[in-house]
Amino acid sequence: MSETVKLTLDEIQELSLTILTKSGFGPDHAQAIADLLTTCQIDDCQSHGLFRLFMCAQTMRTGKVDGNAKPIVAPSDDAVVRVDAQGGMSLLAFDLALPILIEKTRTHGIAAMAINRCFHFSALWPEVESLSAAGLAAMAMVPSHAWVAPAGGTRGSLGTNPLAFSWPRQGKDPFTFDFATSAVARGEIELYRRAGKPLPDGIALDKDGNPTTDPTAAMDGAMLTFGSYKGSALSIMIELLAGPLIDDLTSLESLEFDGGTAGAPYHGEIILAFDPSRFSGGRVAENDARAERLFADITEQGARLPSQRRFAARAQNTARGYVEIAKTLHDDLMALKDQA
Amino acid sequence: MSETVKLTLDEIQELSLTILTKSGFGPDHAQAIADLLTTCQIDDCQSHGLFRLFMCAQTMRTGKVDGNAKPIVAPSDDAVVRVDAQGGMSLLAFDLALPILIEKTRTHGIAAMAINRCFHFSALWPEVESLSAAGLAAMAMVPSHAWVAPAGGTRGSLGTNPLAFSWPRQGKDPFTFDFATSAVARGEIELYRRAGKPLPDGIALDKDGNPTTDPTAAMDGAMLTFGSYKGSALSIMIELLAGPLIDDLTSLESLEFDGGTAGAPYHGEIILAFDPSRFSGGRVAENDARAERLFADITEQGARLPSQRRFAARAQNTARGYVEIAKTLHDDLMALKDQA
Repeated sequence: MSETVKLTLDEIQELSLTILTKSGFGPDHAQAIADLLTTCQIDDCQSHGLFRLFMCAQTMRTGKVDGNAKPIVAPSDDAVVRVDAQGGMSLLAFDLALPILIEKTRTHGIAAMAINRCFHFSALWPEVESLSAAGLAAMAMVPSHAWVAPAGGTRGSLGTNPLAFSWPRQGKDPFTFDFATSAVARGEIELYRRAGKPLPDGIALDKDGNPTTDPTAAMDGAMLTFGSYKGSALSIMIELLAGPLIDDLTSLESLEFDGGTAGAPYHGEIILAFDPSRFSGGRVAENDARAERLFADITEQGARLPSQRRFAARAQNTARGYVEIAKTLHDDLMALKDQA
Repeated sequence: MSETVKLTLDEIQELSLTILTKSGFGPDHAQAIADLLTTCQIDDCQSHGLFRLFMCAQTMRTGKVDGNAKPIVAPSDDAVVRVDAQGGMSLLAFDLALPILIEKTRTHGIAAMAINRCFHFSALWPEVESLSAAGLAAMAMVPSHAWVAPAGGTRGSLGTNPLAFSWPRQGKDPFTFDFATSAVARGEIELYRRAGKPLPDGIALDKDGNPTTDPTAAMDGAMLTFGSYKGSALSIMIELLAGPLIDDLTSLESLEFDGGTAGAPYHGEIILAFDPSRFSGGRVAENDARAERLFADITEQGARLPSQRRFAARAQNTARGYVEIAKTLHDDLMALKDQA
């Protein structure tokens, strides 16, 4: 970032709440979104921080999202908690069902949360880290809009379909990753376009299904998955588990539902949680040590664990009490605040 | 394959049972392994068919595996079935716990099988397809030996760590994939070495941690994961879920346990199963149709679903009643049969 603006955590909250409220989000949703954006900004996760306010405001402008939706948890006595977001943003639904997921995981050893009928704009790592903070391992998956071609294909069938995972570590930041199964994030292609730079090879197809390095042609065409046919297979698995398994939309259906209004994707989400104590027969300390030995073997050879940069930012920003964002983003947010 | 030999399914069974029995496997293990190898050969899955008899025989020669081990299922009333393979090959343990996993999945919606203390040489797709044949979705993961470097690393910390997934389709072969998270299978590097051909870029490191295209240097060094840091993160997740979560060894520990004896890896395995009926609130038909629309959108654009080649081989080989294997493999198996 060249020129930056410093914001305290209170300032992030105030700016977010103002924009969200003026956009049409009721107080509960506005607070949940503001809290999430703050969490992301503390970690310098710029792609999923305040920048997402534009998508939140745009989604409200589509007239499809309910800014006052009250999620409903379906009663269940099995290991699955189903929560209907009632056409609102996903976060309140997750928050409502989280304690139930934790309880079910401790009871059954493994459990799942299925969120239905939600608009989704957020990073998944804060959710899986809510579970690792409770001593559980967790995996989360969501579809998105069908902008990504399967391996060997010519057009978008799949979403950017992120997969996130978190593993609790005693007295340390968790082992966490959260990555899109597309080769790059869609926002990155836009950054290449603005910079007038060609894309790397193997990232995208044009509208006729031919490989392209032209960002504009890529935005009109489709992205590719990471990791060729393996990444493509993984992306299809995410469609199935976070879509048809839980009675919710695929990325193809989400894009149709959007109807060109450029709102956040509308679909479901699945979160799996695992209780190490139950799975290991109570031998958590011995197995923590085993996991730590693996992490040490990785870092001792100079490799980084995922999220290490994010945790370093968290430590720095928490200590100094402010975060930095690009001045260009801040300018755009000020304009959004005035127009929202 | 240049020159081939035709084998009926009975001949596969007889050859397998003879070699396994002479190697020291008791009748239960020999039959379970022979059945699995037959299943793989019907699908022309050459890498995990009869070829694996060499690894089975070698593992017995290490003196570490128990050819008569009787797996034990731990009683549980939660959603996790734990089965101790008692130091035998993994297959009997899976077979014993499979009906319990299916029952637990139907009861709880989601359930898991943890296999402990097993030697493992087999493909995972037959296991996840056992579950999709019962109408459940399933995911399976295992570590192996620490031959794979993490992204940014210089030496092996991770196994080839396969991930398999299967989704049931009404009246059709399931959607199934089963891939190593290493860039290539270890056997492929050996094939390049034998052929005197250089490896593609980005596959392997030499013993000093430098990129290499020399197959011999790669065998002394480490493989890389597929998909760069994303594949590496996925591989670490598999280590954690199929290792410390379930109180069993990592790939680092498995390689140490092997102590240079070149046996099959020794560790645990985790299998997750999902009941579409419970997750979807009984709306299975509607959601099957949704999944089928996604599959159709993928295949209509000329992309292949994973395992399509395998299912085509299954249909052909089942119809004609025999399979074909390379004559060189058959010659080697005849020699193994005499010496075992």
